[in-house]
Amino acid sequence: MSYQVALVPGDGIGPEVMVHATEILDAIGDKYDHVFNYVELEAGGKAIDSTGEPLPADTLEAAQQCDALLLAAVGGPKWDTLPGHLRPERALLGLRAGLGVFANLRPAALLPQLRQACPIKDEVLAASNPEGKASFDLLIVRELTGGLYFGKRGRIDEASGGHSPGAAFDTETYSWTEIERVLRAGYDAAKVRRHKLCIVDKANVLESSRYWREVAAVVSKDYPDIETSYLYVDNAAMQLIRAPGQFDVIVTSNLFGDILSDEASVLTGSIGMLPSASLGSPADPLAKNGRPMGMYEPIHGSAPDIADQDIANPLAMILSAAMMLRYSFGLEKEAKDIERAVNKVLDDGLRTKDIVNRSSGGANEKVVGTKEMGAAVRKAL
Amino acid sequence: MSYQVALVPGDGIGPEVMVHATEILDAIGDKYDHVFNYVELEAGGKAIDSTGEPLPADTLEAAQQCDALLLAAVGGPKWDTLPGHLRPERALLGLRAGLGVFANLRPAALLPQLRQACPIKDEVLAASNPEGKASFDLLIVRELTGGLYFGKRGRIDEASGGHSPGAAFDTETYSWTEIERVLRAGYDAAKVRRHKLCIVDKANVLESSRYWREVAAVVSKDYPDIETSYLYVDNAAMQLIRAPGQFDVIVTSNLFGDILSDEASVLTGSIGMLPSASLGSPADPLAKNGRPMGMYEPIHGSAPDIADQDIANPLAMILSAAMMLRYSFGLEKEAKDIERAVNKVLDDGLRTKDIVNRSSGGANEKVVGTKEMGAAVRKAL
Ligand SMILES: CC(C)[C@H](C(=O)O)[C@@H](O)C(=O)O
Ligand SMILES: CC(C)[C@H](C(=O)O)[C@@H](O)C(=O)O
Repeated sequence: MSYQVALVPGDGIGPEVMVHATEILDAIGDKYDHVFNYVELEAGGKAIDSTGEPLPADTLEAAQQCDALLLAAVGGPKWDTLPGHLRPERALLGLRAGLGVFANLRPAALLPQLRQACPIKDEVLAASNPEGKASFDLLIVRELTGGLYFGKRGRIDEASGGHSPGAAFDTETYSWTEIERVLRAGYDAAKVRRHKLCIVDKANVLESSRYWREVAAVVSKDYPDIETSYLYVDNAAMQLIRAPGQFDVIVTSNLFGDILSDEASVLTGSIGMLPSASLGSPADPLAKNGRPMGMYEPIHGSAPDIADQDIANPLAMILSAAMMLRYSFGLEKEAKDIERAVNKVLDDGLRTKDIVNRSSGGANEKVVGTKEMGAAVRKAL
Repeated sequence: MSYQVALVPGDGIGPEVMVHATEILDAIGDKYDHVFNYVELEAGGKAIDSTGEPLPADTLEAAQQCDALLLAAVGGPKWDTLPGHLRPERALLGLRAGLGVFANLRPAALLPQLRQACPIKDEVLAASNPEGKASFDLLIVRELTGGLYFGKRGRIDEASGGHSPGAAFDTETYSWTEIERVLRAGYDAAKVRRHKLCIVDKANVLESSRYWREVAAVVSKDYPDIETSYLYVDNAAMQLIRAPGQFDVIVTSNLFGDILSDEASVLTGSIGMLPSASLGSPADPLAKNGRPMGMYEPIHGSAPDIADQDIANPLAMILSAAMMLRYSFGLEKEAKDIERAVNKVLDDGLRTKDIVNRSSGGANEKVVGTKEMGAAVRKAL
């Protein structure tokens, strides 16, 4: 089969990691007889430089026509002084909304090969792990197209402290439909994992959180084999550090998901390793072949300070491509193949600078650059 | 001098830790010739049981007449099924608003005696510590009477997913005055610490955060000797784990402060040790003798599972009383005296169950109960 893949290489280290994702995809194509056609698009800083806009209309339109979008990273200090609506982040928010990708899946697992890079003590990890291992494996499902990110906001022109406008506001709004669909995405993920789902909110204060719980009370009935629990966000921020092994799938709002998934990512010791998938609904007009539209990206940023130095870790980008094969194309075997190859190069001791074992000084490990790491994964396929 | 101190012993372990705070205060009174008069008040679960309301009007009125309020802990599973407006937490929110205590100071420091209880690896802590020590010492100043906690909220009666009301909302609103006063509280704290202040927000998305930055641009000019920086909340959630030693004072909104201060607390390995102060303005009508009204409480909860078993750690409550002496009564010497006494009992190896060294199994440590710990601090005075 042939697939149309939109590519946003973006800024900073984006282009140099993207190269390895497409190389790996091409290798998968050769092996399994698929054709991946790439449509390279501009968004973020690069688009600002060439068009004045972070998300040009034709970028969004072209992306909507494709089967899925791979995005490497956007942004950098060069564009940080621009007014808010012209900043590179706008491209991300615009793509999320424009592609209708409401469910953001962010896996955070401690790989056995990288255990030493985890900032948490082994005995703390082991205490909450069901098998007593110094390890955890959780998935945060973050609502991505609603809440405080997309609610009404503005200034209120009342004098306050002698200043006018004297106040500013943002609104968190969630509809039943928005909550239900992201909860279902979470439950579907839990079905193929450890059958536990924890809803994180602030229901002791927020009306929108109480509403999430009402929706959950109804939706959870459709998943009797999944154990549903609830946690306040402040407690969740503690539990992630104190006992990460207790979690399987966490479902939460856009803002809480932003904070908690970044917190969880640093626990893995390797944000250069972490992919993400943002999915729409298979029933959406943008869905192709009954499969959801998806936007796939590493959770790391554009890291302009290390760009073009052959230092960046390409694995998060490569693993994002694997997620695309799984979720938007239904190519599970192919996705697993990539994940196995990544696992193999780690087993072989290959490490980019960001994941070198701090305490052992990297004994049995070989420090490699972006290109060598990418080539090794390709070879391991 | 004589001081009127409102007491809310509250629920769970509340009463048994409160006893030790008043004992210590009385000892301080004897030593320095002060008189502390206590006004015991009901709020939280206990008040619900006796009056049907979490915060009876006469509790609030009586508290307003006092010079300061000590609160131990409120809540418990017994009251968790009540509708939101009748739950024990309402007492906290009502007291905060009713006493006008807008600046919540939450110190989080890793005490050398409790280093082993910290979940973070020594080498990670040392990497960000200015002196290379496995340690950190930060203060979160959380805005406490505004933002999403107190904004307009409700249901929206539009059909969604066949449900009506089909949506719920909450509003984050901040006025210039609200932002300015909490920033000043943060700067004042930074002056007597390490002269660094980090404002945490989500200015790449939220209008209210961008407004915080505008206020900060003006207010920071009054504190030229303090270094001001900005961090997005998702990044802050990572940095707290990865490099806590970089922080001195963090100032942030009500919701972000709730999440980040709980995250920071677990890094200290000892939430049973952590006090907090919530302060109003010295210019407020409720202020007494030119000193701000204050509400002082441990950051731990009511822990009903260990109530009445002589297990709870009374130190957070005792240290909260010390903060009261410092901030509401201006009794710095007396506050230090209590803090020194707490330090001494820790040096002597006394530990309640929650702070026993996990990895050494408590060698050189003596496990004591609530009463013995309280008595030891009194003796050390
Ligand atoms: C850049 C920013 C707008 C974005 C977000 O908050 O969603 C980022 O932090 C992320 O998590 O993808
Ligand atoms: C109980 C709850 C309303 C409260 C809050 O969120 O402020 C608590 O978490 C706290 O931090 O004091």
